[in-house]
Amino acid sequence: MRFPQDWYGGSTAAGLKPSGRPDLALLVSARPAAWAFAGTLNRAAAPSVQRGRALYAQAAPLRALVVNSGIANCATGPQGVEADRRMAELAASRLQISPEEVLTASTGVIGVPLPLERIEEALPRIELGEEVEQFVEGILTTDTRLKLAEAQIGPARLVGFCKGSGMIAPHMATMLAYLVTDAAIPQAELRRGFSKILEESFNQVSVDTDTSTNDMAVLLANGAAGPVEPSQFWQGVRQVAISLARQLARDGEGATKLLTVRVRGARSAEEARRAALAVASSPLWKSAAYGRDPNWGRILMALGKSGAEFDLFKVTISLQGHLLYAGAPLPFAREEVSRSMEAEEVVVEVDLREGEGSGEAWGCDLSEEYVRINALYTT
Amino acid sequence: MRFPQDWYGGSTAAGLKPSGRPDLALLVSARPAAWAFAGTLNRAAAPSVQRGRALYAQAAPLRALVVNSGIANCATGPQGVEADRRMAELAASRLQISPEEVLTASTGVIGVPLPLERIEEALPRIELGEEVEQFVEGILTTDTRLKLAEAQIGPARLVGFCKGSGMIAPHMATMLAYLVTDAAIPQAELRRGFSKILEESFNQVSVDTDTSTNDMAVLLANGAAGPVEPSQFWQGVRQVAISLARQLARDGEGATKLLTVRVRGARSAEEARRAALAVASSPLWKSAAYGRDPNWGRILMALGKSGAEFDLFKVTISLQGHLLYAGAPLPFAREEVSRSMEAEEVVVEVDLREGEGSGEAWGCDLSEEYVRINALYTT
Repeated sequence: MRFPQDWYGGSTAAGLKPSGRPDLALLVSARPAAWAFAGTLNRAAAPSVQRGRALYAQAAPLRALVVNSGIANCATGPQGVEADRRMAELAASRLQISPEEVLTASTGVIGVPLPLERIEEALPRIELGEEVEQFVEGILTTDTRLKLAEAQIGPARLVGFCKGSGMIAPHMATMLAYLVTDAAIPQAELRRGFSKILEESFNQVSVDTDTSTNDMAVLLANGAAGPVEPSQFWQGVRQVAISLARQLARDGEGATKLLTVRVRGARSAEEARRAALAVASSPLWKSAAYGRDPNWGRILMALGKSGAEFDLFKVTISLQGHLLYAGAPLPFAREEVSRSMEAEEVVVEVDLREGEGSGEAWGCDLSEEYVRINALYTT
Repeated sequence: MRFPQDWYGGSTAAGLKPSGRPDLALLVSARPAAWAFAGTLNRAAAPSVQRGRALYAQAAPLRALVVNSGIANCATGPQGVEADRRMAELAASRLQISPEEVLTASTGVIGVPLPLERIEEALPRIELGEEVEQFVEGILTTDTRLKLAEAQIGPARLVGFCKGSGMIAPHMATMLAYLVTDAAIPQAELRRGFSKILEESFNQVSVDTDTSTNDMAVLLANGAAGPVEPSQFWQGVRQVAISLARQLARDGEGATKLLTVRVRGARSAEEARRAALAVASSPLWKSAAYGRDPNWGRILMALGKSGAEFDLFKVTISLQGHLLYAGAPLPFAREEVSRSMEAEEVVVEVDLREGEGSGEAWGCDLSEEYVRINALYTT
């Protein structure tokens, strides 16, 4: 997939990852870009997220992004803040721009200092090109696949890419997500619109209910293709963000399938999203989905713990298109429904029958492999 | 373990569980008992919990408790409400008391109707005796052990017992917990004191963050041993409740060890409890504990997502008595700390260094076995 106009990226192996895979990536715009940003709500936010917030408050345009994907540089003391600043300076120096035009991001192990000399040595080696994959390969950790999406918006293009597969829960996931476009959008509008998109996309993904210290989602617009029609633009952003959110959930650590939950009939959209996310992130429903067990009682349990308003004698629950509960249990062909759960995507549809609010959330099933991956991550 | 004075219990196999193990249990007091009660906050609460709440509001004394442990009788439509009422009537008829003196409880599979004829047939067969185990064996589901605790309170005794090992999260767990005493305590005082105890015990346990539809915790006092000193009484209740909470966590589905988290230095006790529970229930920390990985970064991540106030450069984290983080990472002998995590109980101690609030929570590690148990529960 090609970047939009005047965007370039690349990556290299700086030796931060023991595996020797690419772990240092650079994304550059040939012209100043307007940007919208959201960082993790985790109170133990890493220096990169804190620096991103400070730059965001200044509201000047961005030119570049430097990402390392081996070391989170979180909880590394005051020297970690300095190391993050230094990483921005090194990237700015290579690109002949100001450090304030460079956003940093880190992901990986918490509590390990960033080896700046390796970053300094590797940065000049990054070849910048027009293929998105060249950049994205440098930001992956336990991901098993590339996560990309694109949209054409009038004369402009939007390309989205992200990494993330564990420690993923709302606000944000262990997730670095970037949406870059050559559309020209005023920064104020970009920022206003992005937060609503986040509510319906990245904040509706859960792999394990754990929230990373290093997450961020960024939307960047460099204007190279000129102005676009706003409603068309936001439709494109929404579509790309939701595609990435679904790809994140599907690639959850140890996942064998994507769990999609659609709730309608809630008192509000917020309540519908909350109810959908409670189901998508319930360990018991996730385990049942893994075992192809049409155990709708666990769906009902998760709806009940979400706090969303509903009446046990009115709510309806469908699984893979089979209506299993409508105020009371319905008879169903257990074998057939179980077989339908062998699909790559398992869809739950709920009608709370209280109002007009609807919302969607995405998760993944819980397998023994999730435990294995996470029992042996640092040792 | 023997019941306190004038308490009797027993159980039998009514054929509700496919395994043929005991699944119907009866607890009786020879005299009217004052009682305090808490039911699940899950909006999809089962008829037994809803009936319990209604009886609680009437505030009349209780004489008996009837529990089935094969079928949750939740989400079974209006006929489920009727079945629950009928179960109380059948027990009352056997005991020659009023149905309003009988509390019901159910645990097991959601959405399956209660076979009343089996309950009717089995109830007369229950032999009431003085041994707590005779009752407790009839309320277990996936539990791997009996969970009992006791305290002597002046002339009186307090005995606590519970079931529960999955779908366990605050307010309440899939947990039926009963604390019975022969102390004489006015009902108003019993109710006032019990909610505070719950905050520090059962509501601080998490196995999987899922909240059951059928939980309840009940404290019953029949007064047979006469009055006791209140502060001594509550000390005994607290000790028994915390012992049961720890036993619940240790017997979590698939658990190989108990995870204890102690937080001090929080701005309030509530914030300390919240932070402790976030660590005890983090899938990533639970996986690391299973793998004996001293990955304190995940402890910090979980503290950060709890919402509790702290400064990343001041907080301290100890694991099994080893100080690993104090505002910045400390060097430590990874092999030695990992070996210390082979213990039955893994203790995390955190000082947030913000105030005087302290609190404790209990969880269990996350093993492949949790997934296996829950992927194959109903099919």
